Amino acid sequence: MQFPSKLIEDAVNGFATLPGIGKKTALRLVMHLLQKDEKDTQIIATAILKMRNEIKFCKTCHNVSDDDICSICNNSYRDKSVVCIVENFRDIIAIENTRHYNGLYHVLEGLISPMDGIGPEQLNIESLLKRIKEDEIKEVIMALNPTIDGDTTIFYLSKVLAEYSIKITSIARGIAFGGELEYVDEITLARSIQSRLPYENYMTK
Amino acid sequence: MQFPSKLIEDAVNGFATLPGIGKKTALRLVMHLLQKDEKDTQIIATAILKMRNEIKFCKTCHNVSDDDICSICNNSYRDKSVVCIVENFRDIIAIENTRHYNGLYHVLEGLISPMDGIGPEQLNIESLLKRIKEDEIKEVIMALNPTIDGDTTIFYLSKVLAEYSIKITSIARGIAFGGELEYVDEITLARSIQSRLPYENYMTK
Repeated sequence: MQFPSKLIEDAVNGFATLPGIGKKTALRLVMHLLQKDEKDTQIIATAILKMRNEIKFCKTCHNVSDDDICSICNNSYRDKSVVCIVENFRDIIAIENTRHYNGLYHVLEGLISPMDGIGPEQLNIESLLKRIKEDEIKEVIMALNPTIDGDTTIFYLSKVLAEYSIKITSIARGIAFGGELEYVDEITLARSIQSRLPYENYMTK
Repeated sequence: MQFPSKLIEDAVNGFATLPGIGKKTALRLVMHLLQKDEKDTQIIATAILKMRNEIKFCKTCHNVSDDDICSICNNSYRDKSVVCIVENFRDIIAIENTRHYNGLYHVLEGLISPMDGIGPEQLNIESLLKRIKEDEIKEVIMALNPTIDGDTTIFYLSKVLAEYSIKITSIARGIAFGGELEYVDEITLARSIQSRLPYENYMTK
């Protein structure tokens, strides 16, 4: 693609480094910015620069945060005896949006993956053990993706955590709400039969 | 959607003002920037800011440009007797990419649209007439979208340009390369029969 201007070309190439944005889409975004006020471009550029430069990670749970300790760890209304282990902060946003969890989190920043050469020492497991030793944590919930890496990580963590007297649970795997039995894969269906619930627990509360 | 940080929220809202990018996609882009080096964010933000602040519009043809006169108007190898009229600079990029046009351009920056209250005085028509009077232009090619607004603009321009002794042409409308006759709409099919070409002109050169 040829561009009439080096400035346009640089801006298009900039946008095109983002995932899911190709050169044509990038050009459409640049066109949009050109048609809008200069101030609008300023707002977007400042927001992403400020975000990237000033973002901090919570010293307790490694969630993204504006301060040293994130708003969830700092919230005195939250149940400090339960810690939900997630892969990254996007999962925290997803769980928070359900408004059905009131405990704390711990972000691993990855999953154990022998294929990609990621071992337990590269994840935030040390700081998790420190929390378990120092804070009064009664339950750890594994909320990791149901993949091979996720299951490997859960297996590793459950071994490591076995020596502490805490309850270890995992989010339920089963048929998604609105899902149809005949299209569900066999592993999920088998697991959902194995971990069947009494009828009283079945209804959404 | 709740965000763990005001900085993230601002960045997501910034991206989400762009066309075709919703909050979920914006969050994915922000996540991507967080995983990459700080320098990468700097490059993108600087490129779009610089583009928006420093971009100029060619004083002759209103194309986007790094200088007062764009690289196409400044190119001495281009045929200065032909001017192709387009709606915006994206159309110039599209035509340039064909590598089959060697004349100049004139960007109207819009189309006449009575429905949207856009009249000829809001488009770059004054400067087009100035060029026709002062430069040695022999042919004007209308390369406008085949819509009601496009056809209205062509009709208006052909009236205005009638008093000058120049040739007025329009890009051919017809069946697209690779298109199938049975799925083509009636107006296009009818036009392509009316403006049929001798066989020698038909083959792509």
